Amino acid sequence: MREQAKRIFQSMQDEICSILERLDGAGEFNTDRWERTDKTGAPGGGGVTRVIKDGNIFEKGGVNFSEVFGMMPEDLSASMTGDKVDQPFYATGTSLVIHPLNPAVPTIHANCRYLEVGDKKWFGGGIDLTPYVLFEEDLIHFHETLKKVCDRHDTQFYEKFKRACDEYFYLRHRRECRGVGGIFFDYLGGDTELDKIAAFVSDVSSCFDELYSPIVSRRQGIVPTTRQKEFQLFRRGRYVEFNLLFDRGTLFGLKTDGRIESILMSLPPLASWEYSFEPEPGSQEATLMEIFRHPRNWAR
Amino acid sequence: MREQAKRIFQSMQDEICSILERLDGAGEFNTDRWERTDKTGAPGGGGVTRVIKDGNIFEKGGVNFSEVFGMMPEDLSASMTGDKVDQPFYATGTSLVIHPLNPAVPTIHANCRYLEVGDKKWFGGGIDLTPYVLFEEDLIHFHETLKKVCDRHDTQFYEKFKRACDEYFYLRHRRECRGVGGIFFDYLGGDTELDKIAAFVSDVSSCFDELYSPIVSRRQGIVPTTRQKEFQLFRRGRYVEFNLLFDRGTLFGLKTDGRIESILMSLPPLASWEYSFEPEPGSQEATLMEIFRHPRNWAR
Repeated sequence: MREQAKRIFQSMQDEICSILERLDGAGEFNTDRWERTDKTGAPGGGGVTRVIKDGNIFEKGGVNFSEVFGMMPEDLSASMTGDKVDQPFYATGTSLVIHPLNPAVPTIHANCRYLEVGDKKWFGGGIDLTPYVLFEEDLIHFHETLKKVCDRHDTQFYEKFKRACDEYFYLRHRRECRGVGGIFFDYLGGDTELDKIAAFVSDVSSCFDELYSPIVSRRQGIVPTTRQKEFQLFRRGRYVEFNLLFDRGTLFGLKTDGRIESILMSLPPLASWEYSFEPEPGSQEATLMEIFRHPRNWAR
Repeated sequence: MREQAKRIFQSMQDEICSILERLDGAGEFNTDRWERTDKTGAPGGGGVTRVIKDGNIFEKGGVNFSEVFGMMPEDLSASMTGDKVDQPFYATGTSLVIHPLNPAVPTIHANCRYLEVGDKKWFGGGIDLTPYVLFEEDLIHFHETLKKVCDRHDTQFYEKFKRACDEYFYLRHRRECRGVGGIFFDYLGGDTELDKIAAFVSDVSSCFDELYSPIVSRRQGIVPTTRQKEFQLFRRGRYVEFNLLFDRGTLFGLKTDGRIESILMSLPPLASWEYSFEPEPGSQEATLMEIFRHPRNWAR
């Protein structure tokens, strides 16, 4: 399964970088290959980090493939398997966060991973969208495309993973979701159905073009207002808060001596914090805040 | 002791806001009074948050006084007292973070607090500086002023609290300090010497003018370069990382249902993240990075 998972995630990285370069038309990904050593200096795998910067459309984006292994500290191990002992782990996956310059184009995050801790094995992952300008059509397209992918594997998946996504990308201290969700799944597999899940994850990892490209093409030409730019910076601040306070992948990386620049490449190029910011009542931004506070169902 | 501590911290807030308004010349603090209720809806104290915005000198600054009480969750209680049980707590203090617009003027943070958990009582606090342009004269002034204040109470304080400050304001994942430190102390008191510590904390809380005003006056007229502005945004990103990943006050506030806008008013008005950013070798910014990575002794 390690080899199969690794191949899926390597292709995912290659394909998505090509799609994004084609969409952008100018920006190109730079590639950093890196190796990881653990606290004792022993080899612990490595990865390939690909970053695009100051493109036509994408202000900052990173697509990271990694394959890492070593000993997992007991606290982290306990939170994942229930056994509070140091255990060997193996993890491979691809994760990406793309921050477009234009607030009319939403930020997208995707992450697919395969993990072994001790003798337990599972897949996790998800894809979610963070819009700054409201186009309901885009949100419906995004969720319906994900539902279609889910339905091919299990008709219960979408509803379950959509709800899990709203619960996961939730800033408890703000009582808000980070964006409009998508799907999120974790600890999926178990020995018996690991093959079925691998097929699902493979499908999720290759739906990016269908999911995101039409939205980018439709919205990239829009000239944003100052208020929309401000709202984007404000919501990017929330993106930072979520990733540093709650995101499991980020905290996993920080706790397992991961490569910092690859873990934190998800942070936006620019973000703002204004004391007690609230959008003008009745504005489109106020409607978006309502949506972040009370997630809706977008797929029919 | 509660009443005495509260008076010290209320004066600290009033005095520092006056000093900052005088320095700024244009910006004025707005005041928000707030009350806190705990998870059950029971009264849990409150506070006064004062915020300055888009001033001549200060782009964003907050000075927060609070007096809160209730039951402390067992995990937090265990980390503070060693006893893993829910315990009543009482906390009062003033904290501030001031982000100037001009990178030649450093960001300052100060925090003084008095805390009771169960039957344990102590003071904590500290003051530290985050420069974006290197003026060694300012760093010497800052540390020597703090040393003078410390020496009036105990000649061992400065060395001890300076080292504690470098250790506390340390971003483990980056292997860097947040800035050039200052002093930091916690769990200070115990029943026998609480009066002595109260006198020390009172002195710390009233040295702000001597500490910061000369630096602001000397540097506010400097016209910054683009590189200096970029470096400021980059280091403000590190400020965000520290506060959300490590800062005890921030995490204490989030875990005890604190008032979010008052807790996170410390976050900068604007911050940036660039993948693998490193300043040009030999530049003044590179020297500052060296200083953040290897703290120096600034006081004679």
